Amino acid sequence: MRINPRALIILSLLVFSGVLYVGASTSPIVVFVFCICTLSLFFSLYLTKWVLAKDEGPPEMSEISDAIRDGAEGFFRTQYGTISKMACILAFVILGIYLFRTTTPQQEASGLGRATSAYITVASFLLGALCSGIAGFVGMWVSVRANVRVSSAARRSAREALQIAVRAGGFSAIVVVCMAVFGVAILYSTFYVWLGVDSPGSMKVTDLPLLLVGYGFGASFVALFAQLGGGIYTKAADVGADLVGKVEQGIPEDDPRNPAVIADLVGDNVGDCAARGADLFESIAAEIISAMILGGTMAQRCKIEDPSGFILFPLVVHSFDLVVSSVGILSIRGTRDPGLISPIEDPMSIMQKGYSITIMLAVLTFGVSTRWLLYTEQAPSAWLNFALCGLVGIITAYAFVWISKYYTDYKHEPVRLLALSSSTGHGTNIIAGVSLGMESTALPVLVISVAIISAYWLGQTSGLVDESGNPTGGLFGTAVATMGMLSTAGYVLTMDMFGPIADNAGGIVEMSQQPESVREITDVLDAVGNTTKATTKGFAIGSAALASFLLFSAYMDEVASFAQIPFKEVDIAVPEIFVGGLLGSMLIFLFSAWACSAVGKTAQEVVNEVRRQFIERPGIMDYKEKPDYGRCVAIVASASLREMIRPGALAIISPMAVGVIFRILGHSTGQPLLGAKVVASLLMFATVAGILMALFLNTAGGAWDNAKKYIETGALGGKGSESHKAAVTGDTVGDPFKDTAGPSLHVLIKMLATITLVMAPIFL
Amino acid sequence: MRINPRALIILSLLVFSGVLYVGASTSPIVVFVFCICTLSLFFSLYLTKWVLAKDEGPPEMSEISDAIRDGAEGFFRTQYGTISKMACILAFVILGIYLFRTTTPQQEASGLGRATSAYITVASFLLGALCSGIAGFVGMWVSVRANVRVSSAARRSAREALQIAVRAGGFSAIVVVCMAVFGVAILYSTFYVWLGVDSPGSMKVTDLPLLLVGYGFGASFVALFAQLGGGIYTKAADVGADLVGKVEQGIPEDDPRNPAVIADLVGDNVGDCAARGADLFESIAAEIISAMILGGTMAQRCKIEDPSGFILFPLVVHSFDLVVSSVGILSIRGTRDPGLISPIEDPMSIMQKGYSITIMLAVLTFGVSTRWLLYTEQAPSAWLNFALCGLVGIITAYAFVWISKYYTDYKHEPVRLLALSSSTGHGTNIIAGVSLGMESTALPVLVISVAIISAYWLGQTSGLVDESGNPTGGLFGTAVATMGMLSTAGYVLTMDMFGPIADNAGGIVEMSQQPESVREITDVLDAVGNTTKATTKGFAIGSAALASFLLFSAYMDEVASFAQIPFKEVDIAVPEIFVGGLLGSMLIFLFSAWACSAVGKTAQEVVNEVRRQFIERPGIMDYKEKPDYGRCVAIVASASLREMIRPGALAIISPMAVGVIFRILGHSTGQPLLGAKVVASLLMFATVAGILMALFLNTAGGAWDNAKKYIETGALGGKGSESHKAAVTGDTVGDPFKDTAGPSLHVLIKMLATITLVMAPIFL
Repeated sequence: MRINPRALIILSLLVFSGVLYVGASTSPIVVFVFCICTLSLFFSLYLTKWVLAKDEGPPEMSEISDAIRDGAEGFFRTQYGTISKMACILAFVILGIYLFRTTTPQQEASGLGRATSAYITVASFLLGALCSGIAGFVGMWVSVRANVRVSSAARRSAREALQIAVRAGGFSAIVVVCMAVFGVAILYSTFYVWLGVDSPGSMKVTDLPLLLVGYGFGASFVALFAQLGGGIYTKAADVGADLVGKVEQGIPEDDPRNPAVIADLVGDNVGDCAARGADLFESIAAEIISAMILGGTMAQRCKIEDPSGFILFPLVVHSFDLVVSSVGILSIRGTRDPGLISPIEDPMSIMQKGYSITIMLAVLTFGVSTRWLLYTEQAPSAWLNFALCGLVGIITAYAFVWISKYYTDYKHEPVRLLALSSSTGHGTNIIAGVSLGMESTALPVLVISVAIISAYWLGQTSGLVDESGNPTGGLFGTAVATMGMLSTAGYVLTMDMFGPIADNAGGIVEMSQQPESVREITDVLDAVGNTTKATTKGFAIGSAALASFLLFSAYMDEVASFAQIPFKEVDIAVPEIFVGGLLGSMLIFLFSAWACSAVGKTAQEVVNEVRRQFIERPGIMDYKEKPDYGRCVAIVASASLREMIRPGALAIISPMAVGVIFRILGHSTGQPLLGAKVVASLLMFATVAGILMALFLNTAGGAWDNAKKYIETGALGGKGSESHKAAVTGDTVGDPFKDTAGPSLHVLIKMLATITLVMAPIFL
Repeated sequence: MRINPRALIILSLLVFSGVLYVGASTSPIVVFVFCICTLSLFFSLYLTKWVLAKDEGPPEMSEISDAIRDGAEGFFRTQYGTISKMACILAFVILGIYLFRTTTPQQEASGLGRATSAYITVASFLLGALCSGIAGFVGMWVSVRANVRVSSAARRSAREALQIAVRAGGFSAIVVVCMAVFGVAILYSTFYVWLGVDSPGSMKVTDLPLLLVGYGFGASFVALFAQLGGGIYTKAADVGADLVGKVEQGIPEDDPRNPAVIADLVGDNVGDCAARGADLFESIAAEIISAMILGGTMAQRCKIEDPSGFILFPLVVHSFDLVVSSVGILSIRGTRDPGLISPIEDPMSIMQKGYSITIMLAVLTFGVSTRWLLYTEQAPSAWLNFALCGLVGIITAYAFVWISKYYTDYKHEPVRLLALSSSTGHGTNIIAGVSLGMESTALPVLVISVAIISAYWLGQTSGLVDESGNPTGGLFGTAVATMGMLSTAGYVLTMDMFGPIADNAGGIVEMSQQPESVREITDVLDAVGNTTKATTKGFAIGSAALASFLLFSAYMDEVASFAQIPFKEVDIAVPEIFVGGLLGSMLIFLFSAWACSAVGKTAQEVVNEVRRQFIERPGIMDYKEKPDYGRCVAIVASASLREMIRPGALAIISPMAVGVIFRILGHSTGQPLLGAKVVASLLMFATVAGILMALFLNTAGGAWDNAKKYIETGALGGKGSESHKAAVTGDTVGDPFKDTAGPSLHVLIKMLATITLVMAPIFL
């Protein structure tokens, strides 16, 4: 599994010169994107080298770290084995559908035959799935190596530990963003050159982005199962370990006497690192593709002479994202003299300083990108409006981060009140947490509403008009806002990856029984990681909401071009379409139910196993006997592979089934587009319900976790008190909410959007 | 508060002869409805007399019963004082809006001036509010008198106790249904005669039902606050009592040593009886009015010669409902020899036998009603199609009852698994309960989807066509299905009212320290009450979903007639309308959050008070000192009045605010109907989210309650075990879910539908 940096450099160079030729034949903008991506890959190599050069600490640390690595890599192999089998089956289904579907007049005009389009879609799907898998692997690869280095550095200085965790997170963040941008750019320019786009008699460049949808679907397909499997793994182990260890036996978190502790630490890597890597990869890819489609559609409607600027704009935005995020990552520095900085310094404020730098640079580069690519003589001030859309997106992202922090950080009132409710028992704690989570949906929804409407309005008034003089830039304005929101994705992902690395480092410190002062350092880092994790989730939901709204309109265009009937509206006053909405919302509830119950059921198995070990090996509690960590790892691994299938299959099969049933119903009652319309309504209601449910689950989970942490600081009786026990109950309930169902939901939303787009032919 | 039966008879006779004259001038169908209602009122008088003739038991029982009655009646007075003040303010707002709005061309043609229509709307609103209040009062009045009689009878025979509880519930059910039917019929015929409907130059009879909307709004307005205030009261007391009494001190439920026990028993009456009376009254009224509106619209479109059959159909259906429910109530008989029937006989099967009789009779009478009123020569077989729609509704109701029973009865797997999850701790119990609740939304949504589509299809194919030959009966078909669903409302409400009466009787038995054998009888009755309560809620949600869908189309017609622009579709692909949907769904989450947190906060106050009393009066635990019940009653009463305002105000203000903001936005961007469309989308998304959330909350709550009861039967360690403690935590979490937020949500859905209809002028 060791990667030789030199071999990688040579490989990169070879690949680079190959694709550079294709890129140069497409557009100079693509060449620019390629260059930035390549430089960023070099930068990520530098980060790895820097991280790997750090010491692995004493043998007792590396022993634990090895166990974690083996567990994580073993599970990753089995899990991705299952996922790739499913992906292959799905690829055959897609191939079958595309080989037997009708072609659109545009496709016929451009000479794109049925078979070619089928192979293109399937190849993109498989490539997307592969890249998503690699993104997950990279996230996990670095975190299982960085964790022990962070633990070791924590013995010397808090600042150095922070820096290692940030740079390790930065490595996978840069790789993930790079791969999303590179993948789309390579596919785009390959298709461009291969299909002879824009030459007479072949495809128009504005139709090209639609061919990339398979890539997005592949990415979200893998991300969904990665998130489900990983999420079930990590939280079943966590809940099981806490319920017996903390509540029943009263031993601390990550105590080496707990038989489920290694499974818990493995879970952090496969659940948080691997899954989040795949997830963010998918977010960025889906968002780039949907914005490219919209840019193409709009450029075509407005008859813009050179549409490539509008199409390639998202790739450039993310190239700059790579640059500004790298600056942000580098801005977090260690100090020469470890004695100078006291360990009490708040790591959150250091991270936020880096975020401020990144955001300021992002605003600047975003302005540059809009002026460069979106300037058109037809509407000379349009670029300015779009720059403002980008600003709307950046502000939205900032607001989301702030709101999540307000509801989940124990410096603010909501979590304090939640902690207070623990003092009157388990019941009131749960009621308060559920209410807090539901209440926390209000502000983000208001923010996203204002963002959608103002970005749309800015786009509409940009001066871009279609042939009959109607303003047409609205939807593209929303797309630009989404890009603005994701324009600091690299840095946000870094902050997110930081969390599980710090958490793991804390576990290793605890298990190798380091002195109290070392634990304090990793505890502070861990608490910061909790907050950054919660904020990234808010960020991911916001961008998922916007991206789905964009993909939804791409879906309507696609259906219209297949059916050759205008498809302009989805009227929920029609009973069948209303029913589609009911089913879509229900899908979200059922999916969440199955995701949570998977964790609950597996956790019960873990609880019984841990209890059994404590009874059968009484020496464990006095450190005389070693618990059997392997049994818990095996239980959790096999259960999470089994349990991820049901919710995943539900998500994939139900939109297809609904579409086909209503297609048949529509044909027999004389409503030609019924299937497609019901699916559209299913999709939109599922998006809305999914956003709300995800916000509820993530915030409630984060708040419960931090309410427990707040009590552990000594408030309301502190550790071991009745309040603490109630708070631990809340935390265990919150675990599947915030780390299994919640983050799966925003992946689900985007997977629904891409699956309907790819499967559109079967609804007609 | 004592009502003299004779005075009531004389009053009824006077009223009857007065309205009979008006009814006879309207339609013979109205005379029929009046006669049935009057007979039913006599029947309800017989039931009261029968119940009140039973003995009140020994003095220790009546002492407790008196305390409960005083508490309940005191709270009722204060609560309805607050509600009536708010209703008056709202009446002024409506008056202001209607006096300054424009009139529609139809209104001008019919000579219905601005002022007349304003007064009519306000008067209907106030009458609806008043009747809703009376319905609540009746529910509570009988339950605080029947409870002690049931306790006393439980000393003699289980069967007699069951019969008293059923007949007392039957009394208020009959009165509530009667009042809804009578109220609408009287308003209808008064307006008919007063406005000289159908005479040349005045209003057409098909437009008349729209004037009744104010009545529905008044009813749902009062029901919402009754349910919120009562729900907060009952559950805050219950949770507070359980958390200290059961979990901390280990004393049984309703133990006289618990200072919160009287507050808990009072809560059953104000929360379950009074609120449910107002709620079901509102359900029936809203559903009758919406079906009348649709019947009128359809009759007009199809140019049916005598449309009164289509308009008055719902009133006739509910008249028959009164008859068949009375038969069902009477079918539950005591036996002459108490020794013959052993107390082990399952009361649930007796109740279900009665339900089967009622349903069979309802199918028959429904067929008769459709043939009588919906036969038209234009489409001779239409009545048959509509009879089938009714059958669809009845089957839907039955399926809902069955599904709720499956998920909440401990005879079935879901609750058993939930109980099992308690054995691994509080955390897994909560996770399992939340998953169970979310999963339980799937089947009801599938059932309601099939019902909507098949009833719509039956209506469309009924042969009724408009002038241009398009089939138009679809929506009316859905309306008929809703009526089918509610065609056994009287009996269902009886089963529902039975629950809290049995619960209270159990409390009185426990508090007056009766022998174990008596407690066993009331325990069995109480468990049955829990199941019937859960099933009624499912029933109420199903009918709310259908009624909202109908009111929604009435709203679109109303807006179109005001704006004089066709309003045919609500296209969620438009960003503003999508945002409306986001806001509507968010409203449901926020409302639920505030309703639950109100209970949580108040329960914390109760917990602290109960703990204080146990500490300050150590003699309580040895029965040496009497706890201060009054303090808890006072705390809960004042807190619930305070806490009901916030969610209630949210529900009323937000649709109006959204409508006005988007109206202004629409005017400035040249989209004339934007405000109305965004409100429509808000309404539909809120309906869908509300249905799902209510199903989730009700089922999870019911399942937690019965999982606890299952463990209390001795399973998994029985009372006092760790599993039992975890199950009690689940039960307390479920309390605000199933008795505060859940049942408030279906009232909220209908209130949103009626408020948008009444407030439509301000969105334009």
